[in-house]
Amino acid sequence: MRRVSVFFVLAFVASLEIMCGQEALWSASSRLLSPEINSDNSVTFRYMAPEAKSVKVTGDFLPKSKLETEHGVLELPGFAELVKDDATGVWSFTTAPLMPELYLYNFLVDGVYRLDPLNLAVTRDIASFTNRLLVPGEESDAYNVNKIPHGTVHKTWYDSPTLGMERRITVYTPAGYETSGESYPVLYLLHGMGGDENAWLENGRLAEIMDYIINKGDAEPMIVVLPNGNPRMPMSPADDRLHTPIPTTDEYRVADGSYEASFPEIVGYIDCTYRTVADKMHRAIAGLSMGGFHTMQISKEFPDMFDYVGLFSAATPGRVRVDGIGLYSDLELKLQKQFGASPALYWIAIGRDDFLYENNVAYRAILDSARHCYEYVESEGGHTWRNWRNYLKIFASRLFKHVNL
Amino acid sequence: MRRVSVFFVLAFVASLEIMCGQEALWSASSRLLSPEINSDNSVTFRYMAPEAKSVKVTGDFLPKSKLETEHGVLELPGFAELVKDDATGVWSFTTAPLMPELYLYNFLVDGVYRLDPLNLAVTRDIASFTNRLLVPGEESDAYNVNKIPHGTVHKTWYDSPTLGMERRITVYTPAGYETSGESYPVLYLLHGMGGDENAWLENGRLAEIMDYIINKGDAEPMIVVLPNGNPRMPMSPADDRLHTPIPTTDEYRVADGSYEASFPEIVGYIDCTYRTVADKMHRAIAGLSMGGFHTMQISKEFPDMFDYVGLFSAATPGRVRVDGIGLYSDLELKLQKQFGASPALYWIAIGRDDFLYENNVAYRAILDSARHCYEYVESEGGHTWRNWRNYLKIFASRLFKHVNL
Repeated sequence: MRRVSVFFVLAFVASLEIMCGQEALWSASSRLLSPEINSDNSVTFRYMAPEAKSVKVTGDFLPKSKLETEHGVLELPGFAELVKDDATGVWSFTTAPLMPELYLYNFLVDGVYRLDPLNLAVTRDIASFTNRLLVPGEESDAYNVNKIPHGTVHKTWYDSPTLGMERRITVYTPAGYETSGESYPVLYLLHGMGGDENAWLENGRLAEIMDYIINKGDAEPMIVVLPNGNPRMPMSPADDRLHTPIPTTDEYRVADGSYEASFPEIVGYIDCTYRTVADKMHRAIAGLSMGGFHTMQISKEFPDMFDYVGLFSAATPGRVRVDGIGLYSDLELKLQKQFGASPALYWIAIGRDDFLYENNVAYRAILDSARHCYEYVESEGGHTWRNWRNYLKIFASRLFKHVNL
Repeated sequence: MRRVSVFFVLAFVASLEIMCGQEALWSASSRLLSPEINSDNSVTFRYMAPEAKSVKVTGDFLPKSKLETEHGVLELPGFAELVKDDATGVWSFTTAPLMPELYLYNFLVDGVYRLDPLNLAVTRDIASFTNRLLVPGEESDAYNVNKIPHGTVHKTWYDSPTLGMERRITVYTPAGYETSGESYPVLYLLHGMGGDENAWLENGRLAEIMDYIINKGDAEPMIVVLPNGNPRMPMSPADDRLHTPIPTTDEYRVADGSYEASFPEIVGYIDCTYRTVADKMHRAIAGLSMGGFHTMQISKEFPDMFDYVGLFSAATPGRVRVDGIGLYSDLELKLQKQFGASPALYWIAIGRDDFLYENNVAYRAILDSARHCYEYVESEGGHTWRNWRNYLKIFASRLFKHVNL
C-alpha cells in the first residue's frame, strides 16, 4: 500500500506537468505509436484527430513533386493522405518498405503543418522543425546512438577580435579524450547557409557518426570542430534570441570574406584549449554548400594550415566569379600556391541532381586546367543532409592515415 | 556585378533549402514579427493564416483557468483569441504589459496546437514543444545570453555498473575552467519526473543563470552536474530514440531507490574527469519535484557526501511514507545521522500554490520534531520552472561561501 502511494504521488506530479503543458498526449493508458517501423521496413504513421477533415504526411521518403521556377525545376517533398478510422478518430498511413536511412517528416492537419505529437525526435533546419525517424539497417546504423564508447560534445565560446564578439562553437572530442592524455588531429567541419554551430550535430548526426566510424576502426580518433559561419551572429539564433525575429536572408547572406579571414582565430583557440597536434598534417577542413565555399576560400588563403580539404555540394565559384572582394581575389594564383604544397587530400563530392552541379563542373575545370590533383565523387541525389552525412562518413575515414605510414 | 552574382547564388541555396523544408516562412521580403515586445512590455503575437477560422494563443502570461478533478483543483493555462486582419490574412493579439520574465506559449489554429513559425526559440518539456519569449528587465536578465564570460556545456557519458549501462550526463564548467588550472566545487542539480539531462539546460536556463550570477559575483565559480534521474533510460528520449515511442509514465515512474543508490558512481566519475575539490565541503545537491525527492534520499543516504542540500518543490515523503523500500527506510534514523553532521545548508523552497505544499508541511514537521536545522523559503506560485529558476539563483548564490570565511 505504501509503495502504491509514492508511485501515485510521483505519477500525479507527471500528470500535472503534462496537463499544464500544451499537449496532453503522454499517458500510460493509450499507447498509440507513431511512427511505427514494421518488420518489412515499411513505416506506419498515426495521428489522433477525430475532428479533422484532412491529415497528410510529408517527408523525404515520398516521391518528390516538381515545381518549375525561373531558376529551373525545384523538387519538393511529396505528400500522402492518412485515412481516418471513424471508430477511434485515429488517422493512419503506411509507406512502402523503405531503405535504411534517417528520414524527416511533418503532418499537415487541415492545411496546418504540425509536428507528430507521438515522436520526441525533432530537428530544426534553418527555420523549420521536423520529426526524425530512422529505418534501421547497416546503412543507417551510424546515425543511431549505439552501445559503443561515446565522445563528448562541448558547447563553448571563443573570442573573435576581428569579428568583434565572443562566438559560440561546438567541439566533439572522441571517446577516451578525457583520460588518455594524448593529442589528436582536428577536422574543422562547416555548415551551409542558414545553419549554425548546431547544424552538423542536429541534422548531420555528427557525434553519432564519429562515435561509429571511430569505434569501427574506419576513422582515426579525432577532434571535430563546428564553428558558426555567419559572421554577424555570435551563436545559433535558436538558442540566442528569446524575443527577436528570425534572421533574414540579408543577415545570413554575408559573403565579404570576413569570416574566412577570421578563421586562424578559431584554429588558435582550439589549439590552445584542446590537446591537438597543431600542425598542417593533422588538420582537415570540410564544409557543405556555403561551408564548401568557405572551405575552398579558407584552405587556399592559408595554404600551410590544412592538409585535407573536403568540398561537399560546395557553392564553388565557377561560372560565377567573385574576384572583386579582397580575400576572394587572385583565385588561380592562390590555388597554385595551395596545390603546389601537395595537400594530402583535396576531395570534391556532389550529387547528380544538385542545383550546384554545373557550378562544380566549372570549378573542376579551373583545377583541371592548372593540373591540380583532387579526388572527385559523384553521388545520387541532390542538395541534402542525406548526402552530406554520407560524404562525412567517407571523407572522415580518409583522414590522418598518412600519420601511420 | 560580380558581387551581386555570388550573393545571388548563396541566396538561392538558402531559398532552395527553405522550399524543400516544411515551412517557407523565412524570407527577406516579409518581416512579419512574432512575438514583438512593445516599449511598454506588452507583447504582440502575429500569425499568418488567411484560411483559418480561429487562431488562439495560450501561455503562462495569461490568467489561468481552473479545472476541478478528483485530486483537487488544477490550474491550466489561459487562452486569448487573435483577431484577423482580412486585408493581409494576419491574425494578432497584444497582451497587457508583462513583468520581466521568461514565458512559454503556443498557438491553437482551428483547434490544432502549433509552434509560432516566426520564433526559433523552442523548448521541450516532457512531450510538449513550446515557444519561449523573454520580456526584458532586471528580473529576467539572468535568463538571457549576455555579453559576459561564458561557461562550457559538456554532453558526455559515464558508466553505471549498478544500472547496467553507459548514461549521458550534462556538465557545466564555469568561464575560465579550460585555462585556470584551478579546482572547483560542484553542484549536482536534479530534474523532475519526465525531465532528463537536458531539462535544467532547456527549461531551467542553467548555463545562462550560472554565467550571470558568477559574473555578478553573487555565486562562486562552480561546476554544475545534470544527471539523468530516470534509472531505466541511458539518455534523453528526445535525443536517443529515432523511431521508438515516447516513454510511458511507467517507464518514468521508477521509485525503487536504484537511482539514488547509484549516485556515488556519478560523483566518482565527476571527481575523476573534472578538476573538482573532492570533499563534502565543496559539494552541493539540489533538485526539483521528483529531483527534490531524490535529493532528500541521496543526501541522507550518503551523509558524508554533500554539505549543501536544496529541495525545490520537492516530492518529499510527508503524509505518504515509503519505508517499505530498502533505501527509503529508516528515514528518521538516517536524517538524524545527516543532521548530526551539521550540513552547511539544508534549504527547502516551495510555492504557496504548489500541489505538493501540504506534503512539504508534513516533511518539515518531521524535521521540526527532531529539531533539525534547515532554512525555509515560501514563494508565490506553484509547481513551475519560473519558481525553480528563481530557487536556483538564490540557492546557488548561498553555496561554498564558508570556504572563504
